[in-house]
Amino acid sequence: MRERGIAFCLIPTADPHLSEYLPARWRVREWLSGFTGSAGTLLVGAEFAGLWTDSRYFEQAQRELGDSGIALMKLSVPHTPEHLQWLREHVRNGERVACAADMLSLSASRALRRVLDERGAELTGDDLPCAIWSDRPGLPAAQIFEHPIEYALRSRAEKSTGVRELMREHGATHHLVSALDEIAWLSNLRGSDVEYNPVFLAHLLVDAHGATLFVDGRKLSAGLVSCLREDGLQIRDYPEIVEALALLPSDSKLLLDPQHVCLQIAQVIPRHIQIIEAPGPIAALKACKTETELMHVREAMRRDGVALVRAARWLEESLARGERLTELDVDAKLRELRSQQPGFISESFSTIAGYQANAALPHYHATAESHAELQSRGMLLIDSGGQYLGGTTDITRVWALGDTTPEQRRDVTLVLKGVIALSRAKFPRGASGQQLDALARAPIWASGVDYGHGTGHGVGYCLNVHEGPQAIRPPRSSSHLEALDVGMITSIEPGIYKAGRHGVRIENLVATSIAEATEFGDFLGFETLTLCPIDTRLLDRDLLDDAEIKWLDAYHARVREQLAPLLEDEADRAWLDARCVAFVPG
Amino acid sequence: MRERGIAFCLIPTADPHLSEYLPARWRVREWLSGFTGSAGTLLVGAEFAGLWTDSRYFEQAQRELGDSGIALMKLSVPHTPEHLQWLREHVRNGERVACAADMLSLSASRALRRVLDERGAELTGDDLPCAIWSDRPGLPAAQIFEHPIEYALRSRAEKSTGVRELMREHGATHHLVSALDEIAWLSNLRGSDVEYNPVFLAHLLVDAHGATLFVDGRKLSAGLVSCLREDGLQIRDYPEIVEALALLPSDSKLLLDPQHVCLQIAQVIPRHIQIIEAPGPIAALKACKTETELMHVREAMRRDGVALVRAARWLEESLARGERLTELDVDAKLRELRSQQPGFISESFSTIAGYQANAALPHYHATAESHAELQSRGMLLIDSGGQYLGGTTDITRVWALGDTTPEQRRDVTLVLKGVIALSRAKFPRGASGQQLDALARAPIWASGVDYGHGTGHGVGYCLNVHEGPQAIRPPRSSSHLEALDVGMITSIEPGIYKAGRHGVRIENLVATSIAEATEFGDFLGFETLTLCPIDTRLLDRDLLDDAEIKWLDAYHARVREQLAPLLEDEADRAWLDARCVAFVPG
Repeated sequence: MRERGIAFCLIPTADPHLSEYLPARWRVREWLSGFTGSAGTLLVGAEFAGLWTDSRYFEQAQRELGDSGIALMKLSVPHTPEHLQWLREHVRNGERVACAADMLSLSASRALRRVLDERGAELTGDDLPCAIWSDRPGLPAAQIFEHPIEYALRSRAEKSTGVRELMREHGATHHLVSALDEIAWLSNLRGSDVEYNPVFLAHLLVDAHGATLFVDGRKLSAGLVSCLREDGLQIRDYPEIVEALALLPSDSKLLLDPQHVCLQIAQVIPRHIQIIEAPGPIAALKACKTETELMHVREAMRRDGVALVRAARWLEESLARGERLTELDVDAKLRELRSQQPGFISESFSTIAGYQANAALPHYHATAESHAELQSRGMLLIDSGGQYLGGTTDITRVWALGDTTPEQRRDVTLVLKGVIALSRAKFPRGASGQQLDALARAPIWASGVDYGHGTGHGVGYCLNVHEGPQAIRPPRSSSHLEALDVGMITSIEPGIYKAGRHGVRIENLVATSIAEATEFGDFLGFETLTLCPIDTRLLDRDLLDDAEIKWLDAYHARVREQLAPLLEDEADRAWLDARCVAFVPG
Repeated sequence: MRERGIAFCLIPTADPHLSEYLPARWRVREWLSGFTGSAGTLLVGAEFAGLWTDSRYFEQAQRELGDSGIALMKLSVPHTPEHLQWLREHVRNGERVACAADMLSLSASRALRRVLDERGAELTGDDLPCAIWSDRPGLPAAQIFEHPIEYALRSRAEKSTGVRELMREHGATHHLVSALDEIAWLSNLRGSDVEYNPVFLAHLLVDAHGATLFVDGRKLSAGLVSCLREDGLQIRDYPEIVEALALLPSDSKLLLDPQHVCLQIAQVIPRHIQIIEAPGPIAALKACKTETELMHVREAMRRDGVALVRAARWLEESLARGERLTELDVDAKLRELRSQQPGFISESFSTIAGYQANAALPHYHATAESHAELQSRGMLLIDSGGQYLGGTTDITRVWALGDTTPEQRRDVTLVLKGVIALSRAKFPRGASGQQLDALARAPIWASGVDYGHGTGHGVGYCLNVHEGPQAIRPPRSSSHLEALDVGMITSIEPGIYKAGRHGVRIENLVATSIAEATEFGDFLGFETLTLCPIDTRLLDRDLLDDAEIKWLDAYHARVREQLAPLLEDEADRAWLDARCVAFVPG
């Protein structure tokens, strides 16, 4: 920094596609700071280094930063650029701030530039960490495979036609797509360049007649390449997007989403090209699953449910037999059982198996160095999911391993009340997840408790376990709201976390559907997709009203009906019957 | 317009203080278009004239615009400047658009200018309607009176000190205040320059040592003037604010709220003065009522409740005696009974008394030309309120006048469920009204019904019946959210409107208070302030659960306990007892 006259170096958590999960090559913040969490921004100055992250990671970051001298800067609101406020107060006139141009979205670069402009400072795209990271990993090179049409359902041509229609509405002749899940969706291709998300590094440039996929050709078989070509998808090498943009016809109108295109790519677009900035049309098309896609998702949920039931029974019986098990064993067993299911590709994220107080960390992850041994008492929280050819799953359950405290049962019941309230909600078309968030919180708030994360996120179809545009979370000032549209898959996952004691979260995936059309318009509701018993041994029946018990009994009846035929082992069926028994009060 | 080379003339609904209720002098839009609603924007061009208003007024505007040739432009989202979108599409390069500079807030003028800049058009502050409105009313001249300190409670000096502290936090040396309720609050003065809001036309300039009130001196008695001077409040004539701003010391840092200062005033501020734009500190101080203010409000509610009970009994008995009554008689009787209450100043808004289908218009107002005669069947909705020295009231009830339909009773019950759900809510400190809005709607949505207005608004203390900064309404993209803070008074008023059939709204005012402090922080709740029975003859008990009936019975017990001692007439007490009887199911 001294050599190059740089006052501050900013290292976000990002890759050139603004992905949530990063290829090793872009885990720069982790390499520099030692902090391994999924979200964080590192800022290094001559006399100061700080890491901004949110409450999920305060404890872990403190531990991992250790005596590095990097200060932990606690975000008061998750996912907000509070480091800019710090920079505004500390950067001085004439100073230069460096940030790798391939790790900054176009919109983030503008926010940063505004702050620097205000203080008379300057932004440079210098990639300083790269210059000193001698053994920086290369680009990932995993093979790309086709998402079979019996699961993808809509052909590339059909999807492209839909995208072109929306491009025309924007008056665009070209559309630059950098978001990896959008590219995977349109191309009906999948990869494994990052863990858990079946995507591959690429850019996509759609024009009025065809599209070009910029991707490392070695990842594609010759057969696949010719098949793509037949479908109007040209293949060029990954870095050639730069050249393609530079040579765009001068009358092009280029649609791009400034949140999902990085500064490095954006700045090669010639100045005379008219740019139309808007959320990409693919995000909206991808979010609303078709009825046939939902059919496959329901089947994937049954397969996932079978693995979950078998894992839960294995856990219960192993502990009863006195076997010594740790959180890691649960993680491994679940992986093994899921991988036996037809259509399984991989886990959809790193399993959280947290015993007792460990579950009070919403993003706990057991490691070889640090994990708990399970006892025949208390609760185990398991948050896990799978990628299937016909859908993506994400489920959280808490299981009683033996005796539990009244406080634990009370908290599980309150969380379930939140799940039920939102699952049963009916709401007018156009309502956003931000508008509905409080319905899940109200029963929890009533006991003077709250949780620090959102209530739900969008979920892909054999794609990223987190996807937009919708989200169920508290509204924030100046935030953009997205309506919960028909066909969207969203999680409902309230929780209660009591540090040092226990953590509870119950998570189902739901699909938005039309519930009713009245003189007041369409009203939408949720269909619960996830199929797995909710442990009634952890419920305080006095806290549930009749309507809630009715919902729970109906859910368990459906879980049993859907899963029992797929369970070959008599003992598995018996276990399911016992866990799905009607929860009659009194 | 032709003479002056103006392509479009914009006439908002506003005065130089951006008030909700306008002095006659600024009812320009009404004078020009004939439309008398409270909200609307008129745009006049050579070949087009249009009036933008929201769904509350569609029917009324259609009728009042008649064959004027002015098109009714229906707002899809209330209170949004959708006319700017129209202007963006129709104004041409080089054209000039006129709007009176005293009817445009500084922020609205910027939004307008941005649109015109985009199209190469120009904004001029020409007041065209004024130039042709020969008998335009003069400035209002009503006397100003002191809000007695036993009700105002905090002295001018004490309030000024609080304001100065917040000015210092902003780094401001001066604060320009144009919002009339803010000026009335700080000065402990009240007026009657407009209907219903006890305010007077003035500007206020606060500096580090004192403050200057710019007001027509004839409205003040000599005694009051010297009293104000003693308290550090100088008096200058209303128009002299222009000169005072022009002569501000050059190192002044002037705090102002661009939403509440008009362009005409803002543009006289010399360019070298540093302007700090922020929501004014008075709005926040004024919104949070002190415990002593709330004591007075509770007393005002008892007085208001007495008038309401006597009016409801009169109505019931008059109809039983076979008297012919109209909606206007109810309005007059209520005014008469309220005016007999100690501390009563005026109504706080124009009473809405809507019989049967008339109540389906949320802002219905009976007039001499158009009103309904009451029958001994169906429902009457009454939304009314009073200004008292010790508080402002605003209440809506629906009363059974005889037989009602199952659909009517069902709708009343659903609305009550909404009121109860929100009234019982407990929520973490920091939650906004936007976050809670769905709690009142969920029971109504569950039946496939919604209402097109917000659920609640802030209410002043012997001041405007609508005040900010908080509001309970659906969140919108890019909107600013305000937390519901301790001491705020807000209405809870869900409704159901079925055109041509009936309308239901139940409205209580509530104060935010601390409900509980837990390891998760402070949790807030609502204290219901309004005291008047809810007509249980209109309830479908099968739709209410035990907790809701318990809330209702407890509310009625409190209403009876609070009001009975103030009812001198035995028959009034008997009526109250009958209407407050416990609503035991079965």
